[in-house]
Amino acid sequence: MCLTGMPGSGKTTISEIVKEMGIPVIVMGDVVREEARIRGIEPTPKNLGKLMIELREKMGANVIAKRCVDKIKELNSKIVLVEGVRSLEEVEEFRKVGDVKIVAVHSSPKTRYERLSRRGRSDDPKSWEEFGERDLRELDVGIGRVISLADEMIINEGTLEDLKKNTLKVFRKVIQNDKG
Amino acid sequence: MCLTGMPGSGKTTISEIVKEMGIPVIVMGDVVREEARIRGIEPTPKNLGKLMIELREKMGANVIAKRCVDKIKELNSKIVLVEGVRSLEEVEEFRKVGDVKIVAVHSSPKTRYERLSRRGRSDDPKSWEEFGERDLRELDVGIGRVISLADEMIINEGTLEDLKKNTLKVFRKVIQNDKG
Repeated sequence: MCLTGMPGSGKTTISEIVKEMGIPVIVMGDVVREEARIRGIEPTPKNLGKLMIELREKMGANVIAKRCVDKIKELNSKIVLVEGVRSLEEVEEFRKVGDVKIVAVHSSPKTRYERLSRRGRSDDPKSWEEFGERDLRELDVGIGRVISLADEMIINEGTLEDLKKNTLKVFRKVIQNDKG
Repeated sequence: MCLTGMPGSGKTTISEIVKEMGIPVIVMGDVVREEARIRGIEPTPKNLGKLMIELREKMGANVIAKRCVDKIKELNSKIVLVEGVRSLEEVEEFRKVGDVKIVAVHSSPKTRYERLSRRGRSDDPKSWEEFGERDLRELDVGIGRVISLADEMIINEGTLEDLKKNTLKVFRKVIQNDKG
């Protein structure tokens, strides 16, 4: 399964809920963050964005997906969630090794900005302008196409309890269909 | 207000509900269909897609939005819904003449395909391949970016009653905020 969504929409929280369900989770952004650590690059939004584009340009659009496929194979689990899928080319890469369902999470730009401002992770935007730039960078990679073609859409505008309820509902359904 | 969504997601039904609320609706696709009629072109999905691209190439990416802005001005209404917004450039065009809220409607590709197959409008796809091609054509224009940045997301996977309930909830909220 692939999980996609704009920055601050709630991907990390959904991943935590899914992990609690016993499903292993691979985070695509971690591959970029790992690479930044190896190269000694400070993980600011700008640096990570640049590194993501550099990796893609030098090693192909699917370089991050390919590294995740290696991790999926190591896990040897029937169901895996890959968090942070950003393009249809990446989805295709995962389709080569199994059935893929796309789950998208959506929050309004206003909600996402407020959330990211509170979160303050090193790569989170410091202003509305930086937030807009990051959104456009993600959209340039093709994340909007993945969101628009999602098999399941989770709206995250309410409480954590609401998100938990909706996430369990969606993932139980996906698992059920997979067994059927 | 702008309404966006992939083909078969339920834009037309939402527009009907919104019209019943007394809000005037302008359909962007009608501008392309009108132009096809004037030129004597048969309104197949392929022809309308080609014409849309031709209009944009010859007269600018915002040609359809600009024609809609003229229609909005004629209406002289405080709130107008523009159905079928497909790019952020179009959204910007509407922002020039007033406040814009983006409402997106989402259904899974499977649901949308089943719906379109049943609908059988002249420009509806005849096969899964034609359906996929039309999706990609819309995504190439930039519809995925507009969906991903929506202020409100309506999920349309249930009954018509569900859709009506959700639509009224979302549009009442938008109108309320507009008055506040």
